[in-house]
Amino acid sequence: MFEDITGKVKFDDKGLIAAISQDVDTGLVLMVGYMNEESLGLTLDTGLMTYWSRSRQELWVKGKGKSGHFQHVKEFRIDCDGDALLFQVEQVGGACHTGYRSCFYRLQQDGSFVEDGEKIFDPDSVH
Amino acid sequence: MFEDITGKVKFDDKGLIAAISQDVDTGLVLMVGYMNEESLGLTLDTGLMTYWSRSRQELWVKGKGKSGHFQHVKEFRIDCDGDALLFQVEQVGGACHTGYRSCFYRLQQDGSFVEDGEKIFDPDSVH
Repeated sequence: MFEDITGKVKFDDKGLIAAISQDVDTGLVLMVGYMNEESLGLTLDTGLMTYWSRSRQELWVKGKGKSGHFQHVKEFRIDCDGDALLFQVEQVGGACHTGYRSCFYRLQQDGSFVEDGEKIFDPDSVH
Repeated sequence: MFEDITGKVKFDDKGLIAAISQDVDTGLVLMVGYMNEESLGLTLDTGLMTYWSRSRQELWVKGKGKSGHFQHVKEFRIDCDGDALLFQVEQVGGACHTGYRSCFYRLQQDGSFVEDGEKIFDPDSVH
C-alpha cells in the first residue's frame, strides 16, 4: 500500500530520515527522532510512531515498555525535498524521558539554557 | 557570549545539527535545515536563521537574495540529548521555495501524497 510513499522518501547515506512529532492538539513540537524504511513502514501500518534508535541500533516503538507513552499518528507529511517527515500525533503522557511533555524543554536565555516546560511525570517512576 | 550554548550542542560526525523552524504566531512547522557551529553562531549573533546548505556546501542566510523571505529568531531551544534545535521564528513571506508557507505541504492521504497547504507567492517571481 505504501510504495508510493516510501518511494518519495529520501533516506540519507545511513538509511535514515529525520522525523518530527508535533502534538496535534497544541502544536507543541515534541521530539525529533530518526526512521529507516522498516520503521517508517511499521509507523504507517500500526499508527504508532516507530523510530530507529541510533544509539541502540534497533527498532523503537515510542512508549512501548514501562512508560506507555505512545504516540498515535494522526497526520503524516513530507517536506519539499523529501528528506524530513512531520507527524501530527496524539501523545500519551509526555514525550521526553526526563518527564517533560516535550524534549525541547531547554530554552536559551541570556546566553545559556534554562529549563522551561511542563513536567508531567516523574521519570523515576516509569523508566 | 555563546560558549555555554555551543558547548551543549552535539554536532554529528559531519559537524551538523538539525534545526527546525516553527512559526511563532501559528505553530506551523516551516522547515528543517542543518547548521554547523559557524552558522549557529551567526544565527544567534544576527537573529536571522542561517543554515549550512548541504547541497551547496556554504552558509545560507535564509531569505537573503531575491526572495527576502528572512526568518527572524524569536526563541531558541535545544532538545534533551542536544542533537536537535528548535527555533520560533517570524517568517517573512513563505518558507518554501515552491511558494508554500511551509515546506511540509505534502500530506499523506490514502497511501499517496497530496498537496495541502497555503501557497502564498509565485515561485517564478522570486527565484
